[in-house]
Amino acid sequence: MQSGWSVSDSDGTAFTPMVVLELAEDTSEEAIKWLLSRIRDKEQNGGAELLVEQLLTRDHGGQKGNPNVFLVGSTLKRLLHGAEDVGLFKEFNDDSMRGFTYTNKDNFKDFQGDGDGFLSVAECQYIIKHELDTLRAKDEANVPGYPKAKLYPGKSIIRRLQSKGILYQVFPLHDKEELKRLSFSWYRKVKLSFQPLNDIRHYFGEGLALYFGFLEYFTLAMLPMALIGIPYYLWDWEDYDKYVLFAVFNLVWSTVFLEVWKRFSATLAFSWGTLSRKKAFEEPRAGFHGVLGFNPVTGREEPVYPNSKRLLRIYLVSVPFVLLCLYLSFYIMMIYFDMESWALALYEVEPNFWTGLFLFVPSIIYAVVIEVLNLLYRYAAEFLTDWENHRLETSYQNHLVLKVLVFNFFNCFASLFYIAFVMQDVVLLRQSLATLLITSQILNQIMEAFLPYWLQRRRNKKAHKRLHRVMADQELPLAQQAQLELDMSTYLGTFDDYLEQFLLFGYVSLFSCVYPLAAVLVVLNNITEVYSDAFKMCHVFKRPFAEPASNIGVWQLAFETMSVIAVVTNCALIGLSPQVKAYFLESDTQLILLVVCVEHILLAFKFILAFVIPDVPKHIQNKLARLEFESLEAFKKKKILETSGIPNKH
Amino acid sequence: MQSGWSVSDSDGTAFTPMVVLELAEDTSEEAIKWLLSRIRDKEQNGGAELLVEQLLTRDHGGQKGNPNVFLVGSTLKRLLHGAEDVGLFKEFNDDSMRGFTYTNKDNFKDFQGDGDGFLSVAECQYIIKHELDTLRAKDEANVPGYPKAKLYPGKSIIRRLQSKGILYQVFPLHDKEELKRLSFSWYRKVKLSFQPLNDIRHYFGEGLALYFGFLEYFTLAMLPMALIGIPYYLWDWEDYDKYVLFAVFNLVWSTVFLEVWKRFSATLAFSWGTLSRKKAFEEPRAGFHGVLGFNPVTGREEPVYPNSKRLLRIYLVSVPFVLLCLYLSFYIMMIYFDMESWALALYEVEPNFWTGLFLFVPSIIYAVVIEVLNLLYRYAAEFLTDWENHRLETSYQNHLVLKVLVFNFFNCFASLFYIAFVMQDVVLLRQSLATLLITSQILNQIMEAFLPYWLQRRRNKKAHKRLHRVMADQELPLAQQAQLELDMSTYLGTFDDYLEQFLLFGYVSLFSCVYPLAAVLVVLNNITEVYSDAFKMCHVFKRPFAEPASNIGVWQLAFETMSVIAVVTNCALIGLSPQVKAYFLESDTQLILLVVCVEHILLAFKFILAFVIPDVPKHIQNKLARLEFESLEAFKKKKILETSGIPNKH
Repeated sequence: MQSGWSVSDSDGTAFTPMVVLELAEDTSEEAIKWLLSRIRDKEQNGGAELLVEQLLTRDHGGQKGNPNVFLVGSTLKRLLHGAEDVGLFKEFNDDSMRGFTYTNKDNFKDFQGDGDGFLSVAECQYIIKHELDTLRAKDEANVPGYPKAKLYPGKSIIRRLQSKGILYQVFPLHDKEELKRLSFSWYRKVKLSFQPLNDIRHYFGEGLALYFGFLEYFTLAMLPMALIGIPYYLWDWEDYDKYVLFAVFNLVWSTVFLEVWKRFSATLAFSWGTLSRKKAFEEPRAGFHGVLGFNPVTGREEPVYPNSKRLLRIYLVSVPFVLLCLYLSFYIMMIYFDMESWALALYEVEPNFWTGLFLFVPSIIYAVVIEVLNLLYRYAAEFLTDWENHRLETSYQNHLVLKVLVFNFFNCFASLFYIAFVMQDVVLLRQSLATLLITSQILNQIMEAFLPYWLQRRRNKKAHKRLHRVMADQELPLAQQAQLELDMSTYLGTFDDYLEQFLLFGYVSLFSCVYPLAAVLVVLNNITEVYSDAFKMCHVFKRPFAEPASNIGVWQLAFETMSVIAVVTNCALIGLSPQVKAYFLESDTQLILLVVCVEHILLAFKFILAFVIPDVPKHIQNKLARLEFESLEAFKKKKILETSGIPNKH
Repeated sequence: MQSGWSVSDSDGTAFTPMVVLELAEDTSEEAIKWLLSRIRDKEQNGGAELLVEQLLTRDHGGQKGNPNVFLVGSTLKRLLHGAEDVGLFKEFNDDSMRGFTYTNKDNFKDFQGDGDGFLSVAECQYIIKHELDTLRAKDEANVPGYPKAKLYPGKSIIRRLQSKGILYQVFPLHDKEELKRLSFSWYRKVKLSFQPLNDIRHYFGEGLALYFGFLEYFTLAMLPMALIGIPYYLWDWEDYDKYVLFAVFNLVWSTVFLEVWKRFSATLAFSWGTLSRKKAFEEPRAGFHGVLGFNPVTGREEPVYPNSKRLLRIYLVSVPFVLLCLYLSFYIMMIYFDMESWALALYEVEPNFWTGLFLFVPSIIYAVVIEVLNLLYRYAAEFLTDWENHRLETSYQNHLVLKVLVFNFFNCFASLFYIAFVMQDVVLLRQSLATLLITSQILNQIMEAFLPYWLQRRRNKKAHKRLHRVMADQELPLAQQAQLELDMSTYLGTFDDYLEQFLLFGYVSLFSCVYPLAAVLVVLNNITEVYSDAFKMCHVFKRPFAEPASNIGVWQLAFETMSVIAVVTNCALIGLSPQVKAYFLESDTQLILLVVCVEHILLAFKFILAFVIPDVPKHIQNKLARLEFESLEAFKKKKILETSGIPNKH
């Protein structure tokens, strides 16, 4: 499994460290002892039954690290039992995917001997995290040594330690060997091939693999647009007849692309065993607070927070706040237009090189302001959503995504909508789109690729310097490696990455018919994005815990909504094109009615298409149905056997 | 259980007859013997383990009945086992709904003694039907005595007998006692109260109870519209300001109404135990044919029919046929408009009473023609859908519903759309709407209420006459009762009833703002509809098998689609109203753009509303989650117990 490192538990069992727990430096001895004993305790006593040992950091380079760092591992058998707990699906002997059970283990495909290598390291780490998360308080009233860190029977200990700031972080260790292999096949060699999604999933889990799968799919899907876009840009720029054609192509493409992705992601998720996997019962968020009461579902004692209060906070504070921010963004947009016209006036008074250059300044300033506003708003949205006090992480995430999406959408696209439909100025629209897109891409590349790369270089140098250059090119020993990873930044999930793709998708699908080069820019951006994201994941961030996912979740809905809005904007742009207007010189009314009719028909067609194309390919539906059928049959057979044992009395 | 009747099986066990099997009169002795033995055979030998006996019909009134009528019943124990097979949900001791299991039977709420009365008669009949349907051929190559009725291992015997015309019909017996009680509380006493949905469900099953629940809910939901409609009709007829108000009310109402219904039906389905019930594996339809192959899901030998062929049939034959029918319907509509203008011309040339009356003739003729076309098309749609050779009944039903809906929608509403948006003649629209609605309601009432009532009276008289008026007012003996029911018409499901409500909903939601009396007419129609449908179910038709249903299925989608279309038409009607037009005297363009904007906002709002309102009320979500949580916990506990038995080796 892990590359050769090994430490020993208190009872002398050697184990491979998988997960690091960092406690506060001033944690009381009592609490540490208690926590370790609960982690080591047998499952039937309510423990996690894991192996744990303190990381022995030798003092190096005079810098004193945090002594309260612990390495957690597990026996193989415990991991296999844990795999059953978390409901892992694995490939069975008959090529189907089945829920793993310990008693049935020998019938699974890659299970050999005692099962070493059956679970990937990412899976082992996920299992350990699950077991730590579900380690529950028994009759302790508080964390020993911390009278204020209240506990009640059934409360997740790890969550409480986190919410009280006693536990700094829990993260899985990188596996240098595997990482080297992965990074080689992923981004080290420059070649034309698909990303190694299975390897990514093997190392980082399904959630991240799906993101990279989507990124690649999205980029490939945009290739035709980009290929058509280049000749358009070079030769037919002002031929509006083809501009209509381009818009129609846009429409069909954005619908089909998302429908096919759904099927593709279902295929991936099926082969990874997450499609039919049942969700485990979700723990409350670490930050969730309330009066102690009873959970209506589990019947356990747990803080409860009335839903009505949450709704009041959402509708009386969050919604007005978002609306206010939208108004502010609108106001700033109007200032931008003022600046724009002022720059134009300046140019007209004195047309020279400098005032000509000055024409671009408002757009660039506006693009930067948009990025800054998005960033600021993001913090506010996180604060507000936290304050709404959602019980579950998923519900928190959904509310956060919704807030951020609405604002980002408005902030990025409002000016384009205004130019396109209120000012009806196609030339300005094209110019603004180009400036916005290019500026935001440059900013993003700096923030996402250059900055992390530079930070990581500096950190690596420092770490190696600490070791006095003795073993500069060699593998770092465990303690140093763990120390290095402790200092790495934490990956905050795929949110920002998806958000960026969402906005790029918006630029392409909403308006690209007036600026066909948009798709080209997005493709170029995404090609570097794959590499910089891959590098980031492998070398800049702490390894994240694997996230079992069967689809891209709320983002599918977001992209679909965008593609519906795209139908509306593209139809409107077609209606505004001079070429089309030329046909209806007599009456604007007729043109508008026609455009509206076409738009409604396209929307209806889109919904019908989404309805007719099954979300899961037929052969996977069959496999899923087969599993269900088999379990029904097995149940029936068992029942008949039971019944026939009892003499039948009529 | 059943009211006192009892017959005896061949081995002398007395049983209550529940289900009637009618075989062809000339069925070979051999086949009958084989079928009865298979029905009686023990479950572990692959039999249905039911009790069955021939109905002894004494020759009465010189008329000779079919001798091959069999009564099927079951022991209580077999029924309880069967309840587990079909996955029945029942109320548990702790007030939750749980899947019934025989071993756990004593923990269910209404289970007393040996469990007599625990299952309703409808449930018993459903179980017997399920067991008959899943009675499978073993190694028989054909039905004994019928070399052409091929069998193969796993083929449902009943389906084969039906498809070969050897089995005429299978139907459950009415229960006179219970029926009398039900009909009294349902429609005999005239009073202001809700329908006894639980009793209806108890007697007819969930599918039908949901229909009556929907009918009642829909009627109640229309009451406010009707109440507002009357004063409109009487006083404010031409005040277009209020006509806009009415349209807005229409919009909000049709969205909210459907969302609330979803929650209401989930509540009903939860209390009936069908909400969380898993669907049993579906048998192929009796009419499905194909080359013998292997089912990819069950692995059983079964006829298979390539999906590609079916798709070809659908897209190359069915779709063009439907389009042709739509064109035909359009053509007839144009003829109607010709007639209309011809009648108008006649009236203008010579305006007197007769030509004035003649003005209404085209509309009435057209309404009758529409009904006839709908009827004819229905047969064609059934034939085509049958020819498409769907494997499952649900898929057959969906394709049939889709075909019929599209045509009926076009046929009923095309002329109204044409008048409203092409001719823009509000007065004619009002007149047409009224004529269409009233004529179709009168025709429906005749077809649905008067005709069946009259038929049933005649049949009843004949039956009693046969008995020589000896026991005219008494209960009929079993044999006569069964004979009477054999002759009753078969209820073909809720399709036509829902279709009628769908069209009525269309009249009200699409155009009622120009004819507010529509809601009043629909409410009046539905009040009589409840009574006539109830009477029909109790006295005109054979008792149908209970259909477990957790919602109104495809009809929810149909009604929702209609309410989306209603947004479009109402917005357009508002835009066309002279009052609104007066504000935009200068420019039609502005008015149209405004209407389109408002329409898009309303549509977006509608989708957001549907998304925000949860389909299942919170307290039922909690109960469902609780069940899932408990089964997870029980599983975990069991696992820990198992593990702790084995000594742990690290």
